[in-house]
Amino acid sequence: MEPLYNRQFKLIARPVGSVKRSDFEFVTLPVAEPEPGQVLVKVLYISLDPAMRGWMSEVRSYMPPIGLGEVMRAGGIGQVIASNDTKLAVGDMVTGMTGVQEYVIAQAKAMTKVNAQLAPLPRYLSALGSPGFTAYFGLLDICQPQAGETVVVSGAAGAVGAIVGQIAKIKGCRVVGIAGGPDKCRYLVEELGFDAAVDYKNEDVRQALKQHCPQRIDVYFDNVGGEILDIVLAQLARKARISICGAISQYNQIENMQGPKNYMSLLVNRARMEGFVVFDYAPRYGEAIKAIAGWMAEGKLKTREDIVEGLETFPETLLKLFRGENFGKLVLKVADA
Amino acid sequence: MEPLYNRQFKLIARPVGSVKRSDFEFVTLPVAEPEPGQVLVKVLYISLDPAMRGWMSEVRSYMPPIGLGEVMRAGGIGQVIASNDTKLAVGDMVTGMTGVQEYVIAQAKAMTKVNAQLAPLPRYLSALGSPGFTAYFGLLDICQPQAGETVVVSGAAGAVGAIVGQIAKIKGCRVVGIAGGPDKCRYLVEELGFDAAVDYKNEDVRQALKQHCPQRIDVYFDNVGGEILDIVLAQLARKARISICGAISQYNQIENMQGPKNYMSLLVNRARMEGFVVFDYAPRYGEAIKAIAGWMAEGKLKTREDIVEGLETFPETLLKLFRGENFGKLVLKVADA
Repeated sequence: MEPLYNRQFKLIARPVGSVKRSDFEFVTLPVAEPEPGQVLVKVLYISLDPAMRGWMSEVRSYMPPIGLGEVMRAGGIGQVIASNDTKLAVGDMVTGMTGVQEYVIAQAKAMTKVNAQLAPLPRYLSALGSPGFTAYFGLLDICQPQAGETVVVSGAAGAVGAIVGQIAKIKGCRVVGIAGGPDKCRYLVEELGFDAAVDYKNEDVRQALKQHCPQRIDVYFDNVGGEILDIVLAQLARKARISICGAISQYNQIENMQGPKNYMSLLVNRARMEGFVVFDYAPRYGEAIKAIAGWMAEGKLKTREDIVEGLETFPETLLKLFRGENFGKLVLKVADA
Repeated sequence: MEPLYNRQFKLIARPVGSVKRSDFEFVTLPVAEPEPGQVLVKVLYISLDPAMRGWMSEVRSYMPPIGLGEVMRAGGIGQVIASNDTKLAVGDMVTGMTGVQEYVIAQAKAMTKVNAQLAPLPRYLSALGSPGFTAYFGLLDICQPQAGETVVVSGAAGAVGAIVGQIAKIKGCRVVGIAGGPDKCRYLVEELGFDAAVDYKNEDVRQALKQHCPQRIDVYFDNVGGEILDIVLAQLARKARISICGAISQYNQIENMQGPKNYMSLLVNRARMEGFVVFDYAPRYGEAIKAIAGWMAEGKLKTREDIVEGLETFPETLLKLFRGENFGKLVLKVADA
C-alpha cells in the first residue's frame, strides 16, 4: 500500500469575533496504523455546526475547549479502511468525531456503524444524526408541545430548525418559522408545510409574529438568541416553554453577549426557559432514529443538505453558517467512498 | 355615627424612574355605606411590596395596570366596621386588596377572615400572607430543592427571601443568602441559620459565592435580577433551577432593563429558569399556611416585620424597598384596631 498522507486543520488561535483562516494551520502528516482497539477511517463528509464556534473558545461549556495545536473537532462520517478491532470491518461506514481532516485513527467503540443502503450518507449528519436528535429531544422533551399550540422556531431553515418545525406539525401544532430571505421562507411554507414563515432580513419580526401568532406563542425553539429571543419573550402565552438550543447570532461576539432584556416575561406569563445538550440523550438516540426515519418514510419529514466540496475550504465554508448563507444542513464533502 | 372620612392615595401619573410623591394625589373623601354583599373595612396595616412598582407602569403584566385616578393598589389587613353580607360580621379581621387608604368598601367574598388570636396582625401580610406563599411555592414547586443541594437566595433579608432560605434549610439544603449590609448578613446567619451570607454592598459577590458554593449552585431564588443574576448564572450546577420571583434592581429602570447576559449557561448546564405568580396558587394557600405556621410553632421559621407608622408617609416609605433600607417585611401601619 502506498503511504497515506492526511491533511488536517489544527486550531492554533482562539478566534476573536468571526473565525478566520489564520486561526488554523492546514498541515499534511503521514497516516499511522491503528493500534489494538482502533480503526483507521477515511473521512467522507464532515458536519459543520454552530457549536464549533463555542468549542474554539476558552469559555466553560458542555465539552472542554479544543486545545491549541489540536485537530479541529468535528463530527463526520467515513469508511473504515483498516481495522484492529473485531467490532468494525474494512468497508464499514461509521459516524463519530472525525475531526476536520482526511483520515482519523479512532477507538472502534467510539464510532457508530451506519447502513449506507438505508439513507444517503450525509443524512446521518442531519436528520438521522445530531441535528435530528437535537430537534427531537429539544422540542418534545423540553417543550412538550400540545396539539393546537403555537410553536415558533428560529433558524428554521437550518439543520435543526427545519426538523423542529416538521415534528411540531406532526404533533398538530401551528408552526411559524423564522429564517433569512424569501427563498428559505418559501421553502418552509411550500415544501415543509409550516403555517407561516417570517423573513427576519426583510420583515419586522415583531409585527409578523403578532400577525402569525394571534394566540401568542406557547413554544419557542431558539437557535439564534439576540433580538429575536427578546421579541418572542414579549409575545409569550401563559405557561410558555422556551428551549434554548443555541444563540448563533451571538457566537461571534461572546464578550459582548446580549442578554434577553424581556426575560421578566417569564414571570408575567409563568413561563420557562430551559437549556439542553443533545449528548445527554445518547441512550435514547434509537428512539429518535426510529421516529424520524418513520416520518421520512411516510413523507411527513423532509431534509435538505447543503454540501460544499473540498476539505481545504473549511474555514470559509464554516462562516456560511454564521452569515446564514447555508440552506439546509451544512456538510463538507471530503472524499468519495 | 359621626360621618367618616377616608384619606387615600390616588395614582395620578406613571412614575418615570423612581416613584415620587407627585405621582400621587392624597385626597380626603367621605366614606360610603356598604351595598348588599359588601363590607366597610377600617384599614389597619398595608403591605408594601416591590410588585407595586410594576402595577404603576403601563407594561403588560399578570395584573392590569392601576388606572390613572384610581386608588393605589395594595394588599392590607383591617377590621370590618359595617357589614351588608352574612359572610362577615362587624369586628372581624380580614385581609385582601385594601388599597392605600384608611377605609375600603369591599366585596365580602373578596376578603379573607383571619384569626387575630393566632398571630400578630402584620404577620398575615408576611409569613402567613403573600410573601410566605411566594416563598413556599416559588421555592418548593418551581425549584424542588433536594437535601444536600446548594440554594442561593437574593433579597435574602426581605420578606420573601428570609422565608425562602429558612424553608430551604428545613429541607436540608446548604443555604447562602445575598443581602445588603453587615447587619442583614449577620441576621441571616446568626438568627435565621443560613450557612453563609454575602453582603453585596461590601463584598465581591462573584468571589464570595465561589467561596460559599464550592459545589456550585443548584437552586437560585431570584428577587433582584440585574448583575447578581448574571453572576449566579455563571456558577450554576448541572440541572440547576432558577425561580424568577422578581427583579427589584431593575424596576425603576424598566426602559433600560438589563437582560441576563450569561443566560447561555442554561444550555451548558442543562438548567431551567422559570417564572411564577403567587396568585395562581390561591387554591393551595391553605397547605402553605399549615406548613409555615407549623414551622413557626416549632421555632424553625422566624419572621421580622419592619413597621412604619402613618398612611401619609406612603410614597417615601415605599422607596425604602427599592433602596434596600427595609429590614424584614415592610408594613405601613395606618391605625390601631
